[in-house]
Amino acid sequence: MSTPMNNLGIVNRKIVRADKAAVEKLSRFGVATIHEAMGRVGLMKPCMRPIYSGAKICGTAVTILLQPGDNWMMHVAAEQLQPGDVAVAACTTDNEDGFFGDLLATSFQARGAMGLIIDAGVRDVADLEKMGFPVFSKAIHAKGTIKATLGSVNIQIVCAGAIVNPGDVVIADVDGVVVVPAAIAQQVADAAEKRESFEGDKRAIFASGVLGLDYYKMREGLEKAGLRYVD
Amino acid sequence: MSTPMNNLGIVNRKIVRADKAAVEKLSRFGVATIHEAMGRVGLMKPCMRPIYSGAKICGTAVTILLQPGDNWMMHVAAEQLQPGDVAVAACTTDNEDGFFGDLLATSFQARGAMGLIIDAGVRDVADLEKMGFPVFSKAIHAKGTIKATLGSVNIQIVCAGAIVNPGDVVIADVDGVVVVPAAIAQQVADAAEKRESFEGDKRAIFASGVLGLDYYKMREGLEKAGLRYVD
Amino acid sequence: MSTPMNNLGIVNRKIVRADKAAVEKLSRFGVATIHEAMGRVGLMKPCMRPIYSGAKICGTAVTILLQPGDNWMMHVAAEQLQPGDVAVAACTTDNEDGFFGDLLATSFQARGAMGLIIDAGVRDVADLEKMGFPVFSKAIHAKGTIKATLGSVNIQIVCAGAIVNPGDVVIADVDGVVVVPAAIAQQVADAAEKRESFEGDKRAIFASGVLGLDYYKMREGLEKAGLRYVD
Amino acid sequence: MSTPMNNLGIVNRKIVRADKAAVEKLSRFGVATIHEAMGRVGLMKPCMRPIYSGAKICGTAVTILLQPGDNWMMHVAAEQLQPGDVAVAACTTDNEDGFFGDLLATSFQARGAMGLIIDAGVRDVADLEKMGFPVFSKAIHAKGTIKATLGSVNIQIVCAGAIVNPGDVVIADVDGVVVVPAAIAQQVADAAEKRESFEGDKRAIFASGVLGLDYYKMREGLEKAGLRYVD
Amino acid sequence: MSTPMNNLGIVNRKIVRADKAAVEKLSRFGVATIHEAMGRVGLMKPCMRPIYSGAKICGTAVTILLQPGDNWMMHVAAEQLQPGDVAVAACTTDNEDGFFGDLLATSFQARGAMGLIIDAGVRDVADLEKMGFPVFSKAIHAKGTIKATLGSVNIQIVCAGAIVNPGDVVIADVDGVVVVPAAIAQQVADAAEKRESFEGDKRAIFASGVLGLDYYKMREGLEKAGLRYVD
Amino acid sequence: MSTPMNNLGIVNRKIVRADKAAVEKLSRFGVATIHEAMGRVGLMKPCMRPIYSGAKICGTAVTILLQPGDNWMMHVAAEQLQPGDVAVAACTTDNEDGFFGDLLATSFQARGAMGLIIDAGVRDVADLEKMGFPVFSKAIHAKGTIKATLGSVNIQIVCAGAIVNPGDVVIADVDGVVVVPAAIAQQVADAAEKRESFEGDKRAIFASGVLGLDYYKMREGLEKAGLRYVD
Repeated sequence: MSTPMNNLGIVNRKIVRADKAAVEKLSRFGVATIHEAMGRVGLMKPCMRPIYSGAKICGTAVTILLQPGDNWMMHVAAEQLQPGDVAVAACTTDNEDGFFGDLLATSFQARGAMGLIIDAGVRDVADLEKMGFPVFSKAIHAKGTIKATLGSVNIQIVCAGAIVNPGDVVIADVDGVVVVPAAIAQQVADAAEKRESFEGDKRAIFASGVLGLDYYKMREGLEKAGLRYVD
Repeated sequence: MSTPMNNLGIVNRKIVRADKAAVEKLSRFGVATIHEAMGRVGLMKPCMRPIYSGAKICGTAVTILLQPGDNWMMHVAAEQLQPGDVAVAACTTDNEDGFFGDLLATSFQARGAMGLIIDAGVRDVADLEKMGFPVFSKAIHAKGTIKATLGSVNIQIVCAGAIVNPGDVVIADVDGVVVVPAAIAQQVADAAEKRESFEGDKRAIFASGVLGLDYYKMREGLEKAGLRYVD
Repeated sequence: MSTPMNNLGIVNRKIVRADKAAVEKLSRFGVATIHEAMGRVGLMKPCMRPIYSGAKICGTAVTILLQPGDNWMMHVAAEQLQPGDVAVAACTTDNEDGFFGDLLATSFQARGAMGLIIDAGVRDVADLEKMGFPVFSKAIHAKGTIKATLGSVNIQIVCAGAIVNPGDVVIADVDGVVVVPAAIAQQVADAAEKRESFEGDKRAIFASGVLGLDYYKMREGLEKAGLRYVD
Repeated sequence: MSTPMNNLGIVNRKIVRADKAAVEKLSRFGVATIHEAMGRVGLMKPCMRPIYSGAKICGTAVTILLQPGDNWMMHVAAEQLQPGDVAVAACTTDNEDGFFGDLLATSFQARGAMGLIIDAGVRDVADLEKMGFPVFSKAIHAKGTIKATLGSVNIQIVCAGAIVNPGDVVIADVDGVVVVPAAIAQQVADAAEKRESFEGDKRAIFASGVLGLDYYKMREGLEKAGLRYVD
Repeated sequence: MSTPMNNLGIVNRKIVRADKAAVEKLSRFGVATIHEAMGRVGLMKPCMRPIYSGAKICGTAVTILLQPGDNWMMHVAAEQLQPGDVAVAACTTDNEDGFFGDLLATSFQARGAMGLIIDAGVRDVADLEKMGFPVFSKAIHAKGTIKATLGSVNIQIVCAGAIVNPGDVVIADVDGVVVVPAAIAQQVADAAEKRESFEGDKRAIFASGVLGLDYYKMREGLEKAGLRYVD
Repeated sequence: MSTPMNNLGIVNRKIVRADKAAVEKLSRFGVATIHEAMGRVGLMKPCMRPIYSGAKICGTAVTILLQPGDNWMMHVAAEQLQPGDVAVAACTTDNEDGFFGDLLATSFQARGAMGLIIDAGVRDVADLEKMGFPVFSKAIHAKGTIKATLGSVNIQIVCAGAIVNPGDVVIADVDGVVVVPAAIAQQVADAAEKRESFEGDKRAIFASGVLGLDYYKMREGLEKAGLRYVD
């Protein structure tokens, strides 16, 4: 991976995408489950919210580093998108401008992109919902942008507090956004599957009135920690 | 009520819940009306929002004091919940982790709880909506928590700026969350009823075109205060 | 326009509203389009959000300057509203109290108002949705207000970062809120129309797979700026 | 303690102040030490900062509940202040107006007050520093206030997330603000003293190069928890 | 004043500055006093803070509208600065980049500028303090900017919530920043002088122990409002 | 570098620190200069502020990943610190607790550490200033932490939006915090030196009254962009 000394003005055309089967398997699980399966890491900050109810994304990251008030790199990124990809965009500084709207979405959708994750703002939200193009962002803002300064495409970025490398799997649902490094996508998918299989059983048990206190055998630990019951 | 010197690591099992009839009556009114009926006090901060559209809660508080990144006390609290209760959770410091998800919700629902108010984050939001388990929180976050440090259950807490004592009535709707001390629940319910009965009449009057300026006889006061009309 | 030395305690009864035909024409376009048509100015900050899904407003501004925790001027403003107006309210300091609810909305609606834009909080949100009275605000808060101190009606205000003069056209949709000065309403409406006519064509082109890079002829500029493709 | 139903418009003239000797003893310790001595509770939120470098306060609370944009109760509170008291002010809603300046400070100082803790704004900060009147607030703001609506004096309040009862000891330094309930002031002072006596020894030990890992015997616990050293 | 339709890309070279004598007189008073003298209007938001202790500014505004991440207009503005001016900069969107550093400060100082007010970020803060060039900003940030897009100089702007017209008097001290329209500068200066003359007397009175309750004759009003003293 | 699947519970003992001479050279330049020399990348968010006036740090990073409310890894990290190192700490979630105080500072200082950068809170700030142990943090908070859950030491972290690898050079001053990857430390130091040498000349030129407009030959570009001067 190139060093920061020269990481602006670069488009990496050859990226290693996570295995398709692993991505497909990960798409079956929720963000909370995947994050747990991975050892409670990989989450973006909770400011990242879906722009419409029911939005969900799972795909391989094409990363974009934007400059404030400038969406030039969005257009450069469009060409790098392949079916099954998710555009993941960060900015060199905090900025809530609307870097993305219905025209770029049309272009991204035509390339087969699954959606956009952006640590900034977007607009034309009503159209995006109509098109069924899911976006997770930290703002909705009509503010337009220019095309004047280079950022980069497909370099390592930090998006809403999470490191994203091109080709990583990014999964987003109403609980947030999680990043799974390409190299461990299958491993995490398997762990998520195992975890989920346990959850179903537990749900039935808790629904029957069994307490977590008993099911997880917490009473002894609580007592040792000094918990006192007062009547 | 125990003093702060020893208010961690405690579960108060015997709490005095507000009168059932008063709770039932309060459930008929909105948060804005109840807050007005109580003299404009008792509101939580407006960062507390429903996790799904249409969520509403009314019930008696079982209070929970959490430690950051730790939901052990949620399990302890489950056992204290009775039908008609609302879990109300605060944290010893600001923290937006997802302290609560579908499994705990299943447990809480099995105990008859009406919902959860939490000055922190929750997850599995899609499941919670499907289950019809209403939650008001300041964040949605997939971030999981551990079970290592004691907090308390059923002590006096501050939740999103409001003091909550176990047994108080907590009402939540799209306008926010209000806390009614158990001792005055009936009195507030009666005042809310009286207030609401006036509102219906007023709506018809204002719909007919009568101005608040005239209905409330504000013109004289405005003139005295020096209001000038300029043409 | 009166100077700040005496701009509290004033109601300007005679304001010049933007031309009706221009307002009607502007109502056909989205906020992002109008803001672009005007040269990327006139937007309020993105904290201004609709209180219910699908809310939209277009009308001429009756401006209101409120004092913190005090909605007296809302009642004064009601009398100045004419059919097609939008109430636009700012506060002399940051304050998220609920300055507006169903009764005032009934009054405003009876006067023919199209909605409310308020850089503060509102309440009775469920009722407002049922009434179909759209509001864009920075908060939802049940907190009630008093009627004790004068502000002003129909003076120049700053609302969520944007200057609003009485009679200006204010358009609000899911992308935000934009203010069009009355004097250029027709000019902006025409520019928005022209812009939108181009957009339709572009959508079809991008949907067919043509890239913005080629359509906008960006490749040369990017190369000049030093963009490097790495394989 | 009166219930919220009627807790506005009240001045409690007879409050039980913490024991003078305990207050004096607490004044010798820092906020972090006292908070630890009390079991890690009682802290206000970290937005509460000193308005000038070196500000410190220790005294017994006279509590004030303000209305937004209104400092009437500050004047009412002045009369209740006794030598050694600290004014502790909260507001019924978030508001950063400048509720307090040099004239009120002169009055408070003449009554023997030790300083002000306010979950809002203050002004005349240069004068306050010259007078040596310490204030901890969440904002500095020149915005003036009115005198129109009743709040209360010497009721239980929530100030920056902490419950404060009249007579409680409030200690503030550069690390923040902590509230010690009057009933346990002596007990907490003794615990703080014991804690501090250990700290001095530890400092010398750590300065000599001994690691906390060894001093606190953490290595075994870390290994049990699964810590792996990689070379 | 030009309309927003064409207010980007403009430099107004002939602006009417407030009367020098009025500016000089205003420089003797604090921000809180001037804001009160003007009727409690004209303040910027409290996020605007001095970058070093003791910073103070009083002068006539040369206004600057910046684009995000772009300080081109700072250079354009330098040429418009005259001795006694204050540069007042806003941005078309929220942005905390460092738009200003020691080189621009050297240029501004060479032109006789009194300082900078900027609703954004600055850098080289240690140098600015050494040079004695006062700045009030909402952020300190090393992030550099480009020179690619036009904003404007000497148009009406909104800076941190306040309207600023070129030529207005801007006064900044530790309490915040206030804007006095050029047309009423003398009137406000006189009102501030009168107000300040009263303050001195009051200070002595309050220092002697007289309460505001008595001095301002508040007791009757409080009683009427229903204040109850409880023993 | 290990993948996120197993990056909790790890201490990398053998890290490659940036070249000492390069670190020494970087210590001569300010954060703004270094960030520019590196191509305007590598900055942490501007919420990271020095806890006392005049604090400065330059050294090689020992990275720490903390769990919320838990500073166990601080003790583990102490052992890995070598003279010239800077501790750089992030947390798995947003948390402003006081993870660090005078005892840990004594330990870190005994190991030869140059200071601490922490995307969280610290306490004992008065002592830290007396000891001359510089810290840059996003909060000051007396809130204590526990020692119960594993994080990691010397893995790749994201601190306040910047990627930090163990051994990278971290430089902090009043303008913020910048991270220079170890591999390019010398190159960046050289570029910073060159940049600074130009700055001195420029200062003299601008002080003499030459405008940036002329020095940087901006007039033509501005005209081309359409800038209009209006008299």
